[in-house]
Amino acid sequence: MALSSKYYLEVPAASLDNNKGEIDRINSLLEDFTGIKRIDWPIDLIISSLPVIRSSNGQLTVTACRDGDRLSLISVESGDTRSFHFGIAIDLGTTVVAAELIDLKTGDTLSSEGEINAQVRYGEDLLTRLHFASQGGVNELKSALLDTINKLVDITCKSSGIPSNQISAASIAGNTSMTHLFLGLDPSSIRHEPYVPVVNHVPVLNASEVGLKILPHAPVFIFPSSGSFLGGDLISGVLASGLAKSEKISLLLDIGTNGEMVLGNKDWLLACAGAAGPALEGAVAECATRAKPGAIDRVVIDPTTLEPSFSTIDDKPAIGLCGSGLVDAIAQLYSVGLLDSTGRFVLEKHTTRWQKINHRIAYMLTEERTGSNLPPIYITEKDIQNVLRTKAAMVAALTVLLNSVGISIEEVQKVYTAGSFGIHLSPESSIAIGLYPRLPLDRFIPLGNGSLQGACRVLLDASNIDEAKRIADKITYLELNVHPTFMNLFRSAKYI
Amino acid sequence: MALSSKYYLEVPAASLDNNKGEIDRINSLLEDFTGIKRIDWPIDLIISSLPVIRSSNGQLTVTACRDGDRLSLISVESGDTRSFHFGIAIDLGTTVVAAELIDLKTGDTLSSEGEINAQVRYGEDLLTRLHFASQGGVNELKSALLDTINKLVDITCKSSGIPSNQISAASIAGNTSMTHLFLGLDPSSIRHEPYVPVVNHVPVLNASEVGLKILPHAPVFIFPSSGSFLGGDLISGVLASGLAKSEKISLLLDIGTNGEMVLGNKDWLLACAGAAGPALEGAVAECATRAKPGAIDRVVIDPTTLEPSFSTIDDKPAIGLCGSGLVDAIAQLYSVGLLDSTGRFVLEKHTTRWQKINHRIAYMLTEERTGSNLPPIYITEKDIQNVLRTKAAMVAALTVLLNSVGISIEEVQKVYTAGSFGIHLSPESSIAIGLYPRLPLDRFIPLGNGSLQGACRVLLDASNIDEAKRIADKITYLELNVHPTFMNLFRSAKYI
Repeated sequence: MALSSKYYLEVPAASLDNNKGEIDRINSLLEDFTGIKRIDWPIDLIISSLPVIRSSNGQLTVTACRDGDRLSLISVESGDTRSFHFGIAIDLGTTVVAAELIDLKTGDTLSSEGEINAQVRYGEDLLTRLHFASQGGVNELKSALLDTINKLVDITCKSSGIPSNQISAASIAGNTSMTHLFLGLDPSSIRHEPYVPVVNHVPVLNASEVGLKILPHAPVFIFPSSGSFLGGDLISGVLASGLAKSEKISLLLDIGTNGEMVLGNKDWLLACAGAAGPALEGAVAECATRAKPGAIDRVVIDPTTLEPSFSTIDDKPAIGLCGSGLVDAIAQLYSVGLLDSTGRFVLEKHTTRWQKINHRIAYMLTEERTGSNLPPIYITEKDIQNVLRTKAAMVAALTVLLNSVGISIEEVQKVYTAGSFGIHLSPESSIAIGLYPRLPLDRFIPLGNGSLQGACRVLLDASNIDEAKRIADKITYLELNVHPTFMNLFRSAKYI
Repeated sequence: MALSSKYYLEVPAASLDNNKGEIDRINSLLEDFTGIKRIDWPIDLIISSLPVIRSSNGQLTVTACRDGDRLSLISVESGDTRSFHFGIAIDLGTTVVAAELIDLKTGDTLSSEGEINAQVRYGEDLLTRLHFASQGGVNELKSALLDTINKLVDITCKSSGIPSNQISAASIAGNTSMTHLFLGLDPSSIRHEPYVPVVNHVPVLNASEVGLKILPHAPVFIFPSSGSFLGGDLISGVLASGLAKSEKISLLLDIGTNGEMVLGNKDWLLACAGAAGPALEGAVAECATRAKPGAIDRVVIDPTTLEPSFSTIDDKPAIGLCGSGLVDAIAQLYSVGLLDSTGRFVLEKHTTRWQKINHRIAYMLTEERTGSNLPPIYITEKDIQNVLRTKAAMVAALTVLLNSVGISIEEVQKVYTAGSFGIHLSPESSIAIGLYPRLPLDRFIPLGNGSLQGACRVLLDASNIDEAKRIADKITYLELNVHPTFMNLFRSAKYI
């Protein structure tokens, strides 16, 4: 059952023999439908619905949220409007907030959009924003995030031709800090020992309570966090993958700003976080860009000519290298012998693509493009070292997880790849440079934006609220920074 | 368990080994205390409580409302404040709103006050106000009522030395129209066929939602009505009497503005309303007054001298005749032979108390009081006819109720007398004129303000919420106006 439900009722007219209250008559029918006796109407909804009820000839569609032992009313419409039943899923990304407008009757996605998180004006990275929050900036950060979210509500509604006051449910996932800021809670404590969030488990709230511009009484589910470093976005990704329901052992790799991984099955879940670092993010490589139109996302180097060819997102003129292009380039350089296993260029191997840029040797993916204001795109050893550090962190983290439960990588039956890089990374290249474990390709399942997908699951099936709570409670967090073998594993994994 | 509960917690400090969220740690303890897993915090309460939580050294008192499968948080205080635990019961009288401030720990009444319902400025009687409501006056009537209630909160708090933000629960009973106006609902439909209220059963609301100036998240229980003519005040009175839990058949007589009676036991409840009329209200008899200081409330007439003596409320100089004084006077006039059984004066019997006032004969209770601006107080045949009409209505209604279930009056084991007259009426005089049934005096139990008493019961024991609902659902309303024998019974009962 979806997070909100619509019930079409034919309410018998009042008479001397049936003179229950107007609302009580509706409640009787709802009780017959749902078996729920406790039906909660907000008073303002009773007041605003009376004209609708009285002009409806008894034909009403009631939208409500089934929550535990009660039914909470959301809206009342005249006639049979069960076909107009919508919910919105939102992923509170640190950089990009994503939203998906869902038809809760058919399960179809009507619109899927992303917007830069307006909080970036207070700091590109999370730490800057957390500092600002601790200086009294919580409400500004909350407003900025809310503006972004409500803009997405607006955009997805407009593109689907649906008024926002027909959205009767929302489901939201974000990391622990973003979730705090969304709720107007100061997340400062998250980053200081003992790393305690204000709250992990938030009850289902009302849209009006959190400032979401959909139906005011629409339920808003917020994914629970499992501590400061395991946010609701990861819980949501685990939910979307289904790994916590499977007999088989699976792995979820979420390689975003802050790499996270979860190993486990229906009986146990082990997670670690913070291992990836920003190496794969737009900001690090010299010619890096976010995965947007014009970003080089696929690279092939001819083993004979050593000349590169590439594709860009949406086939636009190349503007830079996104994470997947970077991983492809490194894998290809290594494969054709232009890179050794320590991440150094093999300059003895001759190609016109070697060029000196800012006193350093680079491999040029594009030529100087005269008559264009687009810069040349290239890759340096420093870029490669950054990626290898991320790779080493991922490998070390995975090894720690596997060793903790005493299993080998071959026992991992499925690898779900999520996060902004998981979507685009080529499994072949990722395996080639060791970022992904060496497993048969058919075990890799790209999840897309796992956080957003999990949020959609809750919209379409509210029993996933309990499942999310179960995951958050079950998951065990392994703190890598204090782990005795992590640093050794990390150091020995900085090679291709 | 009271409608709100206080829990003293010693919250362990956060550490690397116990890094649950601050709120989650409190929730764990609450779950241990109550066995309830679902703990709902309003977001604004989390935000406002954090400074308290952080400065409390882990010693906290949490106030919460146990509601079905969940615990709803009301407030968080530093230290052990379990001794400061208060609730307020309110009776939404049409004329007088009454409030009782209760210590929920000891059950003691700390303050009990009444205030004229500020709605009277829109009309002394309910019908005038309902007309005003139907003309768009709902919000004004709501505000006036709320002003009166919040004034009572203020008065009872001041007289007890308790700040209003320590009141963590409220329980409210009123007739169906008053309950509607309290909620801002237009009660117009109540008075027109098919006499349908907007709503009978209202869920437990928050103080902030209804505008009550106590703790914003305090639960506010509102007694359910059982239709347009059986209000929450009567349900509350039935609850207070306990008659709906007894094996024995009992009768509740609520002789207020609108007389109501309930006959029944734990298995069945039969009610009728609207039979009393305003005869006993302050406004009807020529020298009538409300039951306030100076009102004549007891009258004795010497059978030999035929001279009256009387007492007044608070022994103040007599200002008029309240309902109980009126009933006493009629009973005494009849007893000494100055009145016949049809309600006519026996003028042949000589007394200096007969005097002509406005061309009509009256029996003078006081002389002309020269040197005082207090008017003479007397009783006329018209006053007596009015009381006898009320008496006839009560008798006819009771007969209809008894006949409906086929029992005799002797089978009624207890008679609870409630309402503004029930408090003061002398059972002897009331039996003498036939207003009360002729039963042994020890079967009469004065309930006081039954509506207010029932509201107090819910504050002190929230399981009475279900009991109130059970009563409202169980009670059967007998419509006297359309009853075939009522008018005949009424006509034949207009005699002493």
